[in-house]
Amino acid sequence: MSFTIQHYYIRFVVLIIMTKRPLILVTNDDGISAPGIRSLIKVMNDFGDVIVVAPDSPQSGMGHAITLENTLRCDKIVIDNGPQKEYACSGTPVDCVKLSVNQLLKRKPDLCVSGINHGSNSSINVIYSGTMSAAVEGAVEGVPSIGFSLLDTSHDADFSEAEEYVRKITSSVLKHGMDPGVCLNVNIPKIINGQSIKGIRVCRQAHAYWKEDFQERQDPSGRTYYWLTGKFVNYDKGEDTDEEALSNHYVSVVPVQFDVTAYTSIEKLTRIISDE
Amino acid sequence: MSFTIQHYYIRFVVLIIMTKRPLILVTNDDGISAPGIRSLIKVMNDFGDVIVVAPDSPQSGMGHAITLENTLRCDKIVIDNGPQKEYACSGTPVDCVKLSVNQLLKRKPDLCVSGINHGSNSSINVIYSGTMSAAVEGAVEGVPSIGFSLLDTSHDADFSEAEEYVRKITSSVLKHGMDPGVCLNVNIPKIINGQSIKGIRVCRQAHAYWKEDFQERQDPSGRTYYWLTGKFVNYDKGEDTDEEALSNHYVSVVPVQFDVTAYTSIEKLTRIISDE
Repeated sequence: MSFTIQHYYIRFVVLIIMTKRPLILVTNDDGISAPGIRSLIKVMNDFGDVIVVAPDSPQSGMGHAITLENTLRCDKIVIDNGPQKEYACSGTPVDCVKLSVNQLLKRKPDLCVSGINHGSNSSINVIYSGTMSAAVEGAVEGVPSIGFSLLDTSHDADFSEAEEYVRKITSSVLKHGMDPGVCLNVNIPKIINGQSIKGIRVCRQAHAYWKEDFQERQDPSGRTYYWLTGKFVNYDKGEDTDEEALSNHYVSVVPVQFDVTAYTSIEKLTRIISDE
Repeated sequence: MSFTIQHYYIRFVVLIIMTKRPLILVTNDDGISAPGIRSLIKVMNDFGDVIVVAPDSPQSGMGHAITLENTLRCDKIVIDNGPQKEYACSGTPVDCVKLSVNQLLKRKPDLCVSGINHGSNSSINVIYSGTMSAAVEGAVEGVPSIGFSLLDTSHDADFSEAEEYVRKITSSVLKHGMDPGVCLNVNIPKIINGQSIKGIRVCRQAHAYWKEDFQERQDPSGRTYYWLTGKFVNYDKGEDTDEEALSNHYVSVVPVQFDVTAYTSIEKLTRIISDE
């Protein structure tokens, strides 16, 4: 092919790709029938061709777990009359992403969205969250990915105002793409007492943790067992954190990376290790 | 108390603390009876008072999963005649750390060590690994923490040469402490054909991923199921990575943080979001 023909051929292929509707993978950790994912599917159907591959049961707090010692089931399912294709998977949210990208989908999706989670995934919750781990896995697989969460843990949470921000952020990511190795952690405040969301803030992850309080109980035969409960402690007073944005009624957007190297510790650590 | 008396009182308390043997929490993801953790316990008994709280069954690939929807069991157990106290826990590695720090231990441990894992947790494996997630959780709880892994997945792996490096790095961390919010990911090469380990290198996490290949099978009733298999792909040619150190027979030490904010993406993202 001469240079000119090759040039026009490439432009033609790019044009075809650009005019094709984007392929969007949708998952979550609350399970495929949760109202949060149904709301997300509804919004995504306006943006592209949607494939839903989501857990067949709740997988909250599963973090980046994958199924190594067991088999995976993944069955086609119809839940509503929308245009999306859906699969219910026996695995974790990360399994859902891996299985979709490497087995079920004919091509790499243009976008992976996870949620809308029933409850916050801000600050330290990002590392425990199945919703966010699915988005991180999307980034590992080279797919622009977003995890959405609403600060309302109830099953019948109202996602209607959240949808506007899901739409806005999705549109932005489809238009501008994402830095390699990065995904977005989007948390949306719960609207109470007629307040409204003030806008969107790009933030860093607040430094916070859960102060656990294990409830110790005895089973009917007298053997001890525990329930994990805890209290969220935010010890970060920075004004640029997700917690600060959310408490001021802004949607928080934290860019999240899977490179967890603490680069600022490398020099000191090298000195210490070589001293021994 | 006058300033002088208070000053000597503080010095006295510090002296007592310093002369006390450190309290060391040991956990893993291969389960409490795995040879790797037995090797780690043996080494830690030389450094301090050891409490083992480890999963009662294998929990590989559990990442940062926690048990939210179910109860936890944690029972005292005796496996060998060492001086350590041991508990077998029904939960994940992260559950083990949370339960220890917040329920079982009378004081915060001085060190949390996890492993020695049977198999690598270098590069991207850090985010899937239960071993490393336990160490990360230690850091979240404010405890200096280290995850150790040997590049040998076999049950009867030889941990004898690894122990020297476990000892050296543990000694260093007990002496110098750790930056807040940081833990260590230590991987130790497998010794083959009479080669020996060349030393220790502080590194960054290599950018790599697993190219999954799901095996599709049919169960006896004809229904499809999948097994997750995959091939490790390292696309990072940097000389400062853990993969590079390990392939040159060095022990790799990567400082790992739980703040996953992609700081370098914040500025661009802020511009994009505000443009919409």
